Amino acid sequence: MEQVPDFWQNIKLVDIIEFLGTFAFAISGIRLASAKQFDWFGAIVVGLVTAIGGGTLRDLLLDVTPFWLLSSVYIWCTVIALLFVVTFRKSLVRLNNTFFWFDSIGLGLFVVVGSEKAMTLGYPWWVVIIMGTITGVVGGIIRDILINEIPIIFTQELYAVACILGAGLFCILHYLGVDMIIVQVASAVFVFVIRIIATRYQLKLPVLKGED
Amino acid sequence: MEQVPDFWQNIKLVDIIEFLGTFAFAISGIRLASAKQFDWFGAIVVGLVTAIGGGTLRDLLLDVTPFWLLSSVYIWCTVIALLFVVTFRKSLVRLNNTFFWFDSIGLGLFVVVGSEKAMTLGYPWWVVIIMGTITGVVGGIIRDILINEIPIIFTQELYAVACILGAGLFCILHYLGVDMIIVQVASAVFVFVIRIIATRYQLKLPVLKGED
Amino acid sequence: MEQVPDFWQNIKLVDIIEFLGTFAFAISGIRLASAKQFDWFGAIVVGLVTAIGGGTLRDLLLDVTPFWLLSSVYIWCTVIALLFVVTFRKSLVRLNNTFFWFDSIGLGLFVVVGSEKAMTLGYPWWVVIIMGTITGVVGGIIRDILINEIPIIFTQELYAVACILGAGLFCILHYLGVDMIIVQVASAVFVFVIRIIATRYQLKLPVLKGED
Repeated sequence: MEQVPDFWQNIKLVDIIEFLGTFAFAISGIRLASAKQFDWFGAIVVGLVTAIGGGTLRDLLLDVTPFWLLSSVYIWCTVIALLFVVTFRKSLVRLNNTFFWFDSIGLGLFVVVGSEKAMTLGYPWWVVIIMGTITGVVGGIIRDILINEIPIIFTQELYAVACILGAGLFCILHYLGVDMIIVQVASAVFVFVIRIIATRYQLKLPVLKGED
Repeated sequence: MEQVPDFWQNIKLVDIIEFLGTFAFAISGIRLASAKQFDWFGAIVVGLVTAIGGGTLRDLLLDVTPFWLLSSVYIWCTVIALLFVVTFRKSLVRLNNTFFWFDSIGLGLFVVVGSEKAMTLGYPWWVVIIMGTITGVVGGIIRDILINEIPIIFTQELYAVACILGAGLFCILHYLGVDMIIVQVASAVFVFVIRIIATRYQLKLPVLKGED
Repeated sequence: MEQVPDFWQNIKLVDIIEFLGTFAFAISGIRLASAKQFDWFGAIVVGLVTAIGGGTLRDLLLDVTPFWLLSSVYIWCTVIALLFVVTFRKSLVRLNNTFFWFDSIGLGLFVVVGSEKAMTLGYPWWVVIIMGTITGVVGGIIRDILINEIPIIFTQELYAVACILGAGLFCILHYLGVDMIIVQVASAVFVFVIRIIATRYQLKLPVLKGED
């Protein structure tokens, strides 16, 4: 009888974090689509793809059922994100900071979910890191392709690097035999902290200089 | 003995509709590729992707064999479309109306095929709607990415909405226990009619206004 | 006892060719990314996608495990390619001819690997040709999408045509009952030779003329 509330408590925490992350990713897609004069459908597609694109490519590569076919929550989350953007259009800029936090929290969670999925399937550490990173960054890449821009991820402050390091920490802690719940939380927090620090101090990877 | 002609009659009708739809989709890709000075190969790729891209993503997501690996008719249809464009280059503009009809008929069929495939696999109604819509619109999205334009679907007259509503009708009629052949025809006709009306009266979804 | 050295000799030869091909493809992606001011991560992603994109789409369509999940050599090859570009940045232009040879050799190998994979799975000849061609050209297409350019393959000297003809020769020789090792070498060399000749004499497919 004690299991039930405990179960619900766990579910709820992860659910809320995942919802906030999906919401923040969808918002970022919808806002960029609106800047390009997309209609409502276009905005929903771009929002949805931003939120689920990374996990979808990961699941296709790992040959498992795409996660969003198992629950309609990601679709509804995107629809709510659209209504949110439409309703609070004029106040969104002031919420930039809030979205950034959601986005960073979501990124940490996405990386952990992706890493764990690859590890559970028995893949080696470098596949785990790649799948964690794909889950975090590919949605934004497809978003930028759809709005016909060069993916911002390729020039942004330590975004992908945060994913790679977080998934790397996930691997290291796991192989050290650390309890899985600690591995998950530590890796997600690590991604989150790197993103916060990188954005505050504008830390970027060096640009690859072209040939002279 | 009576089964055989009946069988062939059914096959032929759906085949002809599917061929016309594939042909119209391929033509749209080839014409846009030619406007961008693509060579013959580029034109065939863009035409093929326009015609089969939606169904391919659907099949990858549903983890079934991509439909066009099971029959070469889609490849030949695209090659014929290329020869058609090359031969009747100067007359194509006058055929715009004809292509539009083929395209709309094909769209209705594509949506029904996609919806039915997801439903047969036991997916819930919202997955059926998504797969019907993906089958209808993703080919055009990839086409526009390949020619480096923002996907026109995101600003066009009720194109995706027609797919969503058609797939929705498919679900409703099916759950009402209507005979499958009627479900199919009604849904395809519904998509077709919405497209015709939306194009004639230039009905569009509202543009998502950007932030001030 | 004689088998062992023979086995190693075969492995090494194919390995070296595949490594050179992957390296050349990765270099082409990294150089284009650097011209667009991508950071190191962006350059690695574009290099990696150029090298493995075609084989990945092929494996997803054929529903087999993506080849690069089975060995980390493709990742390391791309990382080495990045370090190579960073180190020899100023000398790369002089190496253009060398890269072109690697790229052409790699292309021949990629087409053969793709064709053979489809044939082994029992697909008909036209699927074999498509999969050989996809393996050769799709990496470059995704590379160009990521850097927001129209895929050069659609206007380049007989690049895709070389793949199609090479995969076609693969099918013909196989159905004639020729020994598989000869089929492989002949097809790869055929692709290579067509590329060399097409580039030297600037042979291109005709551009598809737009409507007047």
